[in-house]
Amino acid sequence: MTENYAGLQSVIWTGDKLDLLDQRLLPEEIVYLPLTTSEDVWEAIRHLKVRGAPAIGIAAAYGVVLGSRDAVTAEDWIASVKKHAQYLATSRPTAVNLFWALDRMKAAADRFANEGFSLHQLKEALTKEAIAIQSEDEETNRLIGEHALGLFKDDMGVLTHCNAGGLATAKYGTALAPFYLAKEQGMNIRVFADETRPVLQGARLTAFELQQAGIDVTLICDNMAGMVMSKGWIDAVIVGTDRVAANGDVANKIGTYSVAVLAKAHGIPFYVACPLSTIDLSTPTGAEIPIEERNAEEITEGFGKRTAPQGVKVYNPAFDVTPHEYVTAIITEKGIITAPFEENLRKLFQD
Amino acid sequence: MTENYAGLQSVIWTGDKLDLLDQRLLPEEIVYLPLTTSEDVWEAIRHLKVRGAPAIGIAAAYGVVLGSRDAVTAEDWIASVKKHAQYLATSRPTAVNLFWALDRMKAAADRFANEGFSLHQLKEALTKEAIAIQSEDEETNRLIGEHALGLFKDDMGVLTHCNAGGLATAKYGTALAPFYLAKEQGMNIRVFADETRPVLQGARLTAFELQQAGIDVTLICDNMAGMVMSKGWIDAVIVGTDRVAANGDVANKIGTYSVAVLAKAHGIPFYVACPLSTIDLSTPTGAEIPIEERNAEEITEGFGKRTAPQGVKVYNPAFDVTPHEYVTAIITEKGIITAPFEENLRKLFQD
Repeated sequence: MTENYAGLQSVIWTGDKLDLLDQRLLPEEIVYLPLTTSEDVWEAIRHLKVRGAPAIGIAAAYGVVLGSRDAVTAEDWIASVKKHAQYLATSRPTAVNLFWALDRMKAAADRFANEGFSLHQLKEALTKEAIAIQSEDEETNRLIGEHALGLFKDDMGVLTHCNAGGLATAKYGTALAPFYLAKEQGMNIRVFADETRPVLQGARLTAFELQQAGIDVTLICDNMAGMVMSKGWIDAVIVGTDRVAANGDVANKIGTYSVAVLAKAHGIPFYVACPLSTIDLSTPTGAEIPIEERNAEEITEGFGKRTAPQGVKVYNPAFDVTPHEYVTAIITEKGIITAPFEENLRKLFQD
Repeated sequence: MTENYAGLQSVIWTGDKLDLLDQRLLPEEIVYLPLTTSEDVWEAIRHLKVRGAPAIGIAAAYGVVLGSRDAVTAEDWIASVKKHAQYLATSRPTAVNLFWALDRMKAAADRFANEGFSLHQLKEALTKEAIAIQSEDEETNRLIGEHALGLFKDDMGVLTHCNAGGLATAKYGTALAPFYLAKEQGMNIRVFADETRPVLQGARLTAFELQQAGIDVTLICDNMAGMVMSKGWIDAVIVGTDRVAANGDVANKIGTYSVAVLAKAHGIPFYVACPLSTIDLSTPTGAEIPIEERNAEEITEGFGKRTAPQGVKVYNPAFDVTPHEYVTAIITEKGIITAPFEENLRKLFQD
């Protein structure tokens, strides 16, 4: 089973195109979409075919490679890199990894151009930069998983929301990384996965990838989180994040804030797992993080069948912000950060 | 619009059969099922074609009428009433109104038999008893609505979970009754309806019936309740209940407990609306209320389409218990009960 999981990667660079696992079709169908243009990548990000902050960043990096590969002069090429990076940045407003990856690609392109590379060398070097973003993400996640696993014990019950798993990243995931490492080490962690309405990433992706890896996972509806906590089944909560502000406020999939409040009310630690690239010191607090509102249809007919009355008013925020006072610790590849977050996050970047 | 709503009743007795609105098909189709046997009624209750504690009680009462109507002697009839009442009690384990209505029907049958009624008179008197249960429910709900409305002000935002509306009762509903009365009085209450996974009673029924009545309703996913509270949009929560224990603990649709904890964390009052028949002084605390677990398929393929991996482990409790310390007040047809609930609920029944 683990073998099967290990074989299922969200983003595969084939050398001349990006094969992208269409996550909207999981768990029923495993379909890889061949993306050959930056428009293909933009569309895939916008329509959630690829999701998860790190995977979006990786896909966008390859999108810049695809967008600029037809340039016929070095000048043409650098303009094309910038244009496609700017364009790809408009695909999703919240995920800071998207901007981080695009900025890194632009900076790399400038560096290569300054080194006087030939057009062929420029294209090759930029492709290697995208591949590096992907492989560094895998290593980062393994380190996050190791730090997080130090907080867990055998036979613990851990609740997670949405999908910050292997499918959301190059490999291992962030919030799910400790579960894979625990499995490798023979530990048994009982995972509870919120289904995560409206798009059901918990049911379709988290339950799927953990089940594939032979990890003990129980699927619940979002509104059951309080009840399973009150039964004493949950020893910790761990989630991913789309952006951490300088003060430790955490933007993540809608419903994360409710889980954090419930965890606090039950005396359960609430952990956030993320790479440093998700921490945005230029955003002072969660109040400055833009919250994307999505189509009503995700709620009213999200299952291919209308389940709410025609014309009903709907509020559908894609994310919420969990204030730092609900966060027990932020787990990064460089270690575990606790309060005071503002000070400790700043230190993390100074080191 | 209000006219349209008023015309949509969950349970209609035609004189020789029970026309039952199939609530599983709402909001897309309005289909009345003609029920002619107690088996039909049992099946309708078990499979959630009728739901809501009062409506279940009303349907069950008519089920006893239907089950016993072919009796050919008075003795035969009384035995048949008891047998069908016992049988109908097995359709759902949690709703105390079901048992209350069946007990009332059995007691009425005994009383009529003792009065020496003819077989024809017995059948007619028992039918009138079922009709009385239905019309008393309508009056009860109107009184609950009036008491509840005294707690609300114009332009308040009120969140509700599941459906304790007109469709769940004879008319008006319990938790939704104040919204209908507010509308009649020209008040504008902004209602937020949790969709209420897994069966989506909030999306399919609450949003539908409030929209039909021209009430300002916004549909959200269950996991958005915390966020809308943190935005300051919610001034009160009101829900129905399937059973209130002697100490004030409240069993209601799964997710109610999470909403109550979130309300407390945000300093928002949490109200429970119910008729006296839902209060069960013989159940000391919530711990003694049986919690029905339902099929995994409600979560994994509840929308006619599989949305979770095959064979995944699922936990699907239909109800949860909200401890009385989270309950601001219980609103009944006899008035508003606050803490200490054990003492005040007991007094309510002594008066």
